[in-house]
Formats: sequence, structure tokens, C-alpha cells
Amino acid sequence: MTYRPPVSQILLAMQSAGKFGAPHYADLSLDDAQAIISEAGRFAAERIAPLNQVGDRLPASINDGIVTTPPGWRATYRDWCAAGWNGLAGPADHGGQGLPMLMAVGCTELWNSASMAFALCPLLTAGAIEAIAAHACQDLKDLYLPKLVSGEWTGTMNLTEPQAGSDLSDLRCRAERLGDGTYSITGSKIFITYGEHDCASNIVHLVLARLADAPAGTRGISLFLVPKFLPDGARNDLRCHSLEHKLGIHGSPTCAMTYGDNGGAKGWLIGKENRGLNCMFTMMNNARLLVGVQGVALAERATQMSVAYARERRQGSVPDQRAGASAIIHHPDVKRMLLEMRAKTAAARLLCMATASWIDGSLKAKSADDRRLAHARASLLTPLAKAYSTEIAVEVTSTAIQIHGGMGYIEETGVAQLYRDARILPIYEGTNGIQAIDLVSRKLRLEDGETLFDALKSSREGLAIVAGEPLASRIVSEISELAKTLSKAPDSVQSLAAAMPLLRALAAVIAGGYLAESAALAQGGANESEARYFITVELPTAMAAAKSALSGAGILATYDLQ
Amino acid sequence: MTYRPPVSQILLAMQSAGKFGAPHYADLSLDDAQAIISEAGRFAAERIAPLNQVGDRLPASINDGIVTTPPGWRATYRDWCAAGWNGLAGPADHGGQGLPMLMAVGCTELWNSASMAFALCPLLTAGAIEAIAAHACQDLKDLYLPKLVSGEWTGTMNLTEPQAGSDLSDLRCRAERLGDGTYSITGSKIFITYGEHDCASNIVHLVLARLADAPAGTRGISLFLVPKFLPDGARNDLRCHSLEHKLGIHGSPTCAMTYGDNGGAKGWLIGKENRGLNCMFTMMNNARLLVGVQGVALAERATQMSVAYARERRQGSVPDQRAGASAIIHHPDVKRMLLEMRAKTAAARLLCMATASWIDGSLKAKSADDRRLAHARASLLTPLAKAYSTEIAVEVTSTAIQIHGGMGYIEETGVAQLYRDARILPIYEGTNGIQAIDLVSRKLRLEDGETLFDALKSSREGLAIVAGEPLASRIVSEISELAKTLSKAPDSVQSLAAAMPLLRALAAVIAGGYLAESAALAQGGANESEARYFITVELPTAMAAAKSALSGAGILATYDLQ
Repeated sequence: MTYRPPVSQILLAMQSAGKFGAPHYADLSLDDAQAIISEAGRFAAERIAPLNQVGDRLPASINDGIVTTPPGWRATYRDWCAAGWNGLAGPADHGGQGLPMLMAVGCTELWNSASMAFALCPLLTAGAIEAIAAHACQDLKDLYLPKLVSGEWTGTMNLTEPQAGSDLSDLRCRAERLGDGTYSITGSKIFITYGEHDCASNIVHLVLARLADAPAGTRGISLFLVPKFLPDGARNDLRCHSLEHKLGIHGSPTCAMTYGDNGGAKGWLIGKENRGLNCMFTMMNNARLLVGVQGVALAERATQMSVAYARERRQGSVPDQRAGASAIIHHPDVKRMLLEMRAKTAAARLLCMATASWIDGSLKAKSADDRRLAHARASLLTPLAKAYSTEIAVEVTSTAIQIHGGMGYIEETGVAQLYRDARILPIYEGTNGIQAIDLVSRKLRLEDGETLFDALKSSREGLAIVAGEPLASRIVSEISELAKTLSKAPDSVQSLAAAMPLLRALAAVIAGGYLAESAALAQGGANESEARYFITVELPTAMAAAKSALSGAGILATYDLQ
Repeated sequence: MTYRPPVSQILLAMQSAGKFGAPHYADLSLDDAQAIISEAGRFAAERIAPLNQVGDRLPASINDGIVTTPPGWRATYRDWCAAGWNGLAGPADHGGQGLPMLMAVGCTELWNSASMAFALCPLLTAGAIEAIAAHACQDLKDLYLPKLVSGEWTGTMNLTEPQAGSDLSDLRCRAERLGDGTYSITGSKIFITYGEHDCASNIVHLVLARLADAPAGTRGISLFLVPKFLPDGARNDLRCHSLEHKLGIHGSPTCAMTYGDNGGAKGWLIGKENRGLNCMFTMMNNARLLVGVQGVALAERATQMSVAYARERRQGSVPDQRAGASAIIHHPDVKRMLLEMRAKTAAARLLCMATASWIDGSLKAKSADDRRLAHARASLLTPLAKAYSTEIAVEVTSTAIQIHGGMGYIEETGVAQLYRDARILPIYEGTNGIQAIDLVSRKLRLEDGETLFDALKSSREGLAIVAGEPLASRIVSEISELAKTLSKAPDSVQSLAAAMPLLRALAAVIAGGYLAESAALAQGGANESEARYFITVELPTAMAAAKSALSGAGILATYDLQ
């Protein structure tokens, strides 16, 4: 099914939740933004979308350490880079266009709706660029950034080892000082996205490893740049020894990597010794947002496919329709599902766009105070954007299968692929459970709780447009109470057990506010039914789930799994 | 991972929700029941479970119309039949053991936990046996039932055509009277489970088709028995021309069938002309229950795998644990997920077992009145058992992936297969949306609403054990009000749009009552935390979702999907 880039929805999200009118966006006109989103949408629909099923059926494969991407991927990646898309948000002093995160989020949605497996490669490269730009020395920047920004080279993140996933304190990959300022890296990494492939002439691995004299735990981890090919053109001592056989994103090679089979891979330190996790976290925040955007992208695609199918498929008759079988889009149960899909997708998109906007503010707002407050707001919203958008991606792609009925269960339709692809999203870049703990134990109390207070104040104003002031106030005071209860004792069993349902409810309150505001701003009734449905149905359900989870958390304390 | 048959949980469900003490179960001792469930569990774990991943990786395949099942399936099916399992609930006068539905449900869970793709074949045969036993003439019964009951032959249901899925009124498959009492069948059918395979020496197709002079719509459909091999041993004019490439249950061949390529397949009428849908519905009710049981089975298997993994996997530390990484089973967020999985699985099992028990009562209770009331109760519970159990199967298998983290996304773990397999359950044997419409438009008002009233009365007594009488009464009166609102105007947009959330809430109320009762009956605290968690967390969330869906249904009336 043809992918139709939701240009007007993305622009609406930029203008409402994304605060496109803010002074620091003054360099970019709305016409420019529209032109960029339209062009990106065209490339995504015409060039990338046709690759998606191909990549699912002919996955990336490995032969003697050489990884081959699916047919057509190499050429399309080359053209995509040549058109300048890889450098969109890259640093201007290394060849990038330096566009704001807002634009990056808009385009990231488009690439991922077209093919998430394809779009993962540049997503990882963007993370590497960010870490290098923020923490590496000038020489490394000059050597690596231009080719990473152009896309000629790609980047990876090497965190996970078999025994160290969510918890990196037990990392065993080792680094040794070579005396000349470089390091020798040995060890194994797993789940390395695009760790090896044939689309780029070099692959720049960012690898977390431990020096022999480093303190135990997460304060003894350093970050290294370990290129596949060394500056002199020689092959570095690293290889991909196998690919994972995954539920989805088959086109994206997930590599098990070995460093130092022949003595040690050569690496360069990024940032300071033992401070590698800090460097990683800089980058990880943006990566988390972009994973949320992947959720929006799959939800959007699944919704489009479902609407198209429901328009064509005729079964049963609906009382107020003319005789004969009705298109199932007119059946109330199907209509309910479609409206729910649209509402969740729009809500997640707005949440991601708002997060992007605060990230931009944290870098570009005029005063230091404003930048600090924007940074805090982005920090609060990031776990919401990641976890909420990826949860709804799983739900919306599942509902898409339901709407397609038996046809949805057949792989040819393509909707089952979205369902399989989506299931990684709540897991990678920090599981949603980790996001919830991050929210409860750190984010709720940022700036002495003022960040949350400000976010909820805006949300109340938005909600009031649809729900009226009294109800909006009641919703906001209920979620504030819940948040207060949990953040008072964030390490208690009760708080940890209710953290995920709280995250979902808080995301619904904040996204509900954005939805209402976007509907008020929009022309032609866009997001209007979605906002009403979301605030009437989704929001109270999420609130009830959070409240009851808190009541039920006490049961866990005494629960002994036999 | 080894499958451990949950024998004590199944027996507990039989004794509590299944009312094993009822007089019509007097022929079967608890010792016998235990022995049967234990033996079935052993066969399931030792012989069938090892086939499950094999079937996923080496799907059923077709070559020149011949379908080959995965390695090992043929031999295991033969041994399974030889051990008498296929005839468990089959009619005693045709070689079956005539055991009650209660036992069939217990065993069906075991086969499907071991391998749903394998267990589908006998599930379809059971449906064919039922339809033939209830509606065919004595000659057909004598000819076909003994071999279907032994499992030497298998059965299929041929309903769906490309244009006719949920709505069968537009069926185009044709039947022509041949003058000798037999019929000539021509046309195409799709999605025919085990329509062709190599495990049995004959396949007995039950085919819905239309006579040329039949009235339009569903009152013009007849049911025919169309065997692959005719009584004289000749091949009938039917063939499988392709297999579907599905999201899951790869081991189970889903066939596109053609009848009458060479003039017409020979068929025999079952029941009366134009009354085929009635014959199908007899069987379909039990099939719907058994699909619910498949949901229980996958949820149980996913939960077992998750508990085992969470016990082994160490990440992060939990405050009250000793130093070093803790097994993730001690992390509150993981514990919450596991308790939720257990609670939902137990709730669904009890709901299915209760439905089975009322089906048994409808056939075997002493008085005609009791049989009528039992039939009504089974009719009310069937859509709940089907839709609720299959919804939670999708959720529980998804949560299982989440608990496994990155490993859950890798196919080798096996948990991703459960997730893929489960997704068909809310679709086949009547989509869950169809179940919800059935509930709202017919089932709520059975016996002038007395059936629902009785069910909720029992539920209130159960809920009161855990929640106390006042809360239990409030819950029951709330769901009664909701049910009344919907059943008053069952064809309104509002009712149809809120039907699915209402079904879920009603299922939660009724299953919550059963859970509490089972915990009260059980030794050693089984189901106790599950019941409390379910009633404290799941039930109020489902109620909130139903209430808000009703509030939001009005939005749909004016919603125009652009």
C-alpha cells in the first residue's frame, strides 16, 4: 500500500506542540519547513517505502564476516545521502545543515514510516555524530565528523554485552593504554545495530569498555571511537561474527561483534577516562526521543493502511447505510478502532515534537535560565515520549491487524511486518520500565518539581479547551497527587511497581493537552475528534490504570512467585 | 524451555469455576480427572512441545498440491491418536470416550501450550465430529464418525471466501443436486486450516455452499460433507492450490482450496438444505470456547517462560537484596508484569472452564429447565471466554517479550513465536468485535436478562470474598447499569462502539469472581495474590475503559474519517 506522508499533520505538530513560532526558530521560515518536510516525504514514499517488504523477506545476511544488506538498500542509501538528508541536523561547521531537532523529528518520522529497518542506520549515525561533536577532541572531530555528516561513513553504539543489558555496571569489554594516546580494545558486544554492512566505506564504532585500573561499576566505563578502517586505510582488529535472527526489522543487521581477536582493536578515547557513560547519556537522550518517533512512524503507517483497507473491504451492513454490504469503515466498532489509532498516533507525535522543541530551546533559547528550564523540560518529557510512543506503536499496529482480519495475519498485506517491527521499540534505548524508573526517581523532581508543575500548567490550559476548566483542573490535580506520592519514595516497591502506569497516565495528560491545543490551532477540523476522543476515553482509562496500580502495588511486597 | 503442565491449576479451575462436584460429573472421579490431566500433560510436554519450534522454522509446505507437515508431526500425531487422545470427548457410540467438555477444555489447554500449530488439527476435527453427530443422517455418521473420532481421518471447516469473511451472506461456492441424493460442489475457499496435509489418510471437509434456487443471504446456505477420498477410494474433485504465508502458526497449513476444477466435487448434505448456517453455529459455539482455551494455553506458556527467565537473568540491584546484581524477578516492575500475566491467565482459564461446565450442564443436567438455563449461561459466557482469553493472550505474550528484553526479540528464545502465534486468536472463529456484538445484541438479554442477572449474582458473591460485600455490590451494579444501557439499543452506534470495552469489563467482573472463589477453595495460597491483584488493578481499569468508551461513543456518530 502506498505511503502518504502526513505533511500537514507534521507541520501542525511543529506549529502547536513544537512552538515553531519561538524566537530561536526565526532562521527557518514556515515555507522552508514545509518544503523540507514535503521533499523528505517524497523521497520516503517514492524511494524508501518500496524497500520495506523487500528487506523483510530478504533480510541482511552474513557470509564470512561480510554483511550484505537487502537488494536496493545500498543504492538508495547512497542517493539519500547525496540528496543531503543525512546531514540535515548535523553540525554546520562539519558540513551539516544544522537544522533544529524539530525538523529532524519531522523527517525521522517520514524515513521510519517508509522503512524502519532502513532508517535505523542513519539514526545510529546521528547518535555517533552527537557524541563525537560533544565530547571528542578536535582532531577526532575533524577526521570523523565530515564523513559521518555526509553519510559516507556510518556510526554505531556498542553498549550491550550478554551479561550487561539494562545494567551496564558489569561491562567486561577491556581497554588498554598503548602509550601513544591510543588504546587497545578487546571483548565482545551484542545487539549492535548496523555493526557491519555494505552501505558505507567505513563504520565508526563507539564502544564502551573498561580500563584495567578503572573503578568497579558504571564509574569505571570509558567511551572509545573504534573505526572499522584505521586512518591509514588498514583494517582494524574487529569483526562481526554473526547476525541475530529477529522477530522484525529483518533488513537491519543486528550484529554480534568481536574486538581484538588478533591482539586488540585500535581505539581513541572520547571524553575522559572513566566518564564514558556521561558521554553516552548525552547522546542517549536524543536517541530515546528518536525511538519514540519511530513509534509514531509505525503507528502512522499502520493507521494509514487500516483506513485504506477499511474503506475497501465490504462486510455486513450498517443500519444507516444503503443496501448491500457496507465498507467496514462504517461499522462503529471499526470506526472506534480507527479513531483510537488516529488519536494515539497524533498524541504521540505531539509529545515527541514538544520534546524536540524543548531540546532546541535548551540549546538556543536566549537566556541561560531559559536554556536551563528548557533542558529540564526536555528531560522530563523524554521518557514520556520514548515509552508512550513505543507502547502505542505496539497497540496501534496490533489494532491494524485486527482491522485487516484474516488478511492481517497473512504476511503479504504488510501490516504484520509493522507489528513485528514495532515490538523492539519498547525494549531498545532503555526499556520502557527503565524510562518509568527514570521518570519517577529523577525527572518528576527536576527543579524542585517546578518542571512538572509548569508542564501540567500548560497541559491544564490545553485540556480546558476540550474538557472545560473544572475537569481540566481536576485531572491535573489528580495526576499531581499521584506523581507526588510516587516521587516521595521513588525507591519503594510501591513507587517502582506503579511507575509504568504513572508514566502512561502522565503522558496521556500532557499529550491530551497538546492534542486539544493542536485542534484549536488547526484548520478544517484536524485533530478535533481525536482530541475529544483522547480526553474522553484514553485519558480517564490511563488515569484509572495508574490509580489502581498504586492501590495494587502493596500486593507485590508480599507476593512470592512460586 | 521445558513446558511444565499446570496440572494443579487446571484441576483447581475444574473444581471451582468448573463445578466438578455437580451431579452430572458423578461418573468421573477426581482421581480419574487428575490422572487424565497428568497423562495428557506428560504427552504434551514430552512429545508435542519439542515440535513447536521445529514447526515454526520448517513450516508446512506445498508441492504439486501435496502438503507436507513439519518433521516429526506425522509420527507424533499418529502416536497421539493411538493413545486415544483424539477420542477423549468424542461420542461414545462411535468409539469416543464421551468425556465432558470440562475435560476437553483441560486437555485442549495442554496440547495448545505445547504447540498451538499442532493442536489446531484435532481442534478442527472435533468441530467436524460435533456437526456431523448433531446434524448428519445415520449413514454419514456411521461412515465418518468412527474414523474421525479415532483420528485416522481429520476434519475441516470451509466457510471463508475472499469476499465473505465475518459476513457469510455473500458466499458464492455453489452446490448442485445430482439427483441421487448427492451434490456437486464448485468454488473456492480460503483460510482452510489443515485443508490438506499428510497426517491422515482422509480429510473430511465441511463446506458451506449455495444451491442455485436458494434464497439470497445467510438463509440460502447449505452445509456439505465433501471428503478428499470418496467411499469407493477414488479421489474427489478438490485440491489445495496454495498455502498462506502467515505471521505465526507456521506449522499449521492454511490452505486455499478449490472444489470442482474437473466438473464438481461430490458432497453430501448435512442437515437440511438452506439450513447450513444453523448446523455451523452448533459447532461454532464450542469452537469459540476452544479458541479461548488456546489463548489460555499461549498465555500460560508465555508466563512460564517469563518466570523462568526472570529467575535466571541478573541485572541491576534491588534495595532489599544482597549485594551484586539481582535476578530481575525481584525488580518491582518485573514482578508487577509477572503477577499481571499470572492473574490474567488464571482469570481466562477459569472463565473458559466455567463456560465448559455450563455446556456440560446444558447437555446433562437433570431437569429440562436446568438444561435450558445452563445453555443460556453457556451462551452468555462463550463470547466472553473467546474474546477475553484471546485478548489477554496477545497482551501476555507481548509482556513476555518485554520481560525477556532484547533476548525476547530474538527468535531463538521462542517467546516471539508465542507472540506471533497468539495474534490470530482475536481474529478467527469470529473476530472479537463480532463476539462483542453477539454479546450486546443477543446474549445480555437471554431469558429476559435473568441469565446475566444470575451470572452477576454469583460474581458478586465471589468478589465479596476479596473486595468485601459493599464494593462487590457496587461493582456489580455498575456493570449491570452499563449492560442495561447497551442492551437497550443494541444496534445504536453508541452500543456497537462501546460493545468491545463492555465485553472486557463484564469478563473482568465475572472472571474476578471466579478467581476469588478459586483462591478461597485452593490449598497453599494458590491464586490468592492473583485474585487480589486482578480485582484491585485489572477490574477497575476495565470498568473505567468501558465507562469512558460509552461516554466517548457519541464522538463517533459525527466522526468523518478524512
